[in-house]
Amino acid sequence: MHILIIHAHPEQQSFTSALKNTAQQTFEQQGHTVEVSDLYEMNFNPVASKDDFGSLNQPDYFNYALEQRHAFKQQQFSADIQAEIEKVQHADLVIFSFPLYWTSVPAILKGWIDRVFVSGLFYGGKRFYNHGGMTGKKAMLCLTLGGREHMFGEGSVHGPIEHYLSPLQRGTLAYVGFEVLPPFIAYHVPYISQQDRQKIVIDFEHYLQNIDDLQALAFPLLENFDDRMNPL
Amino acid sequence: MHILIIHAHPEQQSFTSALKNTAQQTFEQQGHTVEVSDLYEMNFNPVASKDDFGSLNQPDYFNYALEQRHAFKQQQFSADIQAEIEKVQHADLVIFSFPLYWTSVPAILKGWIDRVFVSGLFYGGKRFYNHGGMTGKKAMLCLTLGGREHMFGEGSVHGPIEHYLSPLQRGTLAYVGFEVLPPFIAYHVPYISQQDRQKIVIDFEHYLQNIDDLQALAFPLLENFDDRMNPL
Repeated sequence: MHILIIHAHPEQQSFTSALKNTAQQTFEQQGHTVEVSDLYEMNFNPVASKDDFGSLNQPDYFNYALEQRHAFKQQQFSADIQAEIEKVQHADLVIFSFPLYWTSVPAILKGWIDRVFVSGLFYGGKRFYNHGGMTGKKAMLCLTLGGREHMFGEGSVHGPIEHYLSPLQRGTLAYVGFEVLPPFIAYHVPYISQQDRQKIVIDFEHYLQNIDDLQALAFPLLENFDDRMNPL
Repeated sequence: MHILIIHAHPEQQSFTSALKNTAQQTFEQQGHTVEVSDLYEMNFNPVASKDDFGSLNQPDYFNYALEQRHAFKQQQFSADIQAEIEKVQHADLVIFSFPLYWTSVPAILKGWIDRVFVSGLFYGGKRFYNHGGMTGKKAMLCLTLGGREHMFGEGSVHGPIEHYLSPLQRGTLAYVGFEVLPPFIAYHVPYISQQDRQKIVIDFEHYLQNIDDLQALAFPLLENFDDRMNPL
């Protein structure tokens, strides 16, 4: 496999960064190849704007998704977007490595999605979910957070973590056709002992060594919906 | 009331921008005052980083939330963050106006939250949900999207839109203590007629004119949980 890790943490010594390094080493030890986009190190620009395109198809009224479709046909994306698109195209598995900021990704990673998951290639028309542009590839979240595990779930104080992850796992990754593997979640990270952190690193190594045995999350199949997307 | 609108759309002529203008006009006609943070116009920087603080408490290991707590005590935030914090402090109601990008907010708005909702003021320790720093204030989402309304909900192709909005409504706004009003959602916007758009504008005017009658969404009360956040 060729694995792409999209990493978004401002501190190289953080536990999130340690997990990213663990993933890279574990995969390489198994003979896979790994590429890392370290968004903070790259000073990645997360703001979707007119500057993302070589020229605008409709300069008088800026519609981001329509300009993406045009730029995809003309191969006219800005160099930073084009480079990231090609990294995804070459990957069999994409891992998103981040600390949970406001029950979501840090803005620098949200902007990577906004700008790189371009209309025309990743999705478009009826090409989404199991017909999305990234079918045949896998994706997985690896996240760290401050809360304890018992604070999430039905009836718990914060409710199911799956709801918070649904914009990423369903609305983004599954939507564009990725097979989404179960997320690896490290809880309570700022408050636990060095020993407990080391235990999480070992758990993560085992998780990745057995990644082929993980069962992908279930998402809609378009065959179960009619042309207007009503359930059949 | 004093109302703050956080607006994130790159096109001034967009329908999202028209709804923002509708909100401003409707509130002003009712004698309220309105302030707008137009994030694209402000060229707002969404990336949380060391540059957000006058000096670092712990320069050798950067922990964003801990530096926020320190900077809050010292009043040492960068000028752009401090200005936005003060806007929120002066507001009775905060409206978030945005197009749904990947079933979430555009990165420029995510970064506004990451950088402005600082630890120490907005939340901290046991101060969250109905004990959060923003109790007594209201907040509301106003969003536009491409999908049709019947594509969302239990059993529909995309599932309940509430799940996608939970990182914003529950994990962010309710978490810091805002009373969260039901969202105003304009569906299928890029594809509908000018007449249908006009109808949405009129619906939105009525929605805002009767905002005092809207029943806030329900979120956890900390009184129903013990010290370790287990349900009582």
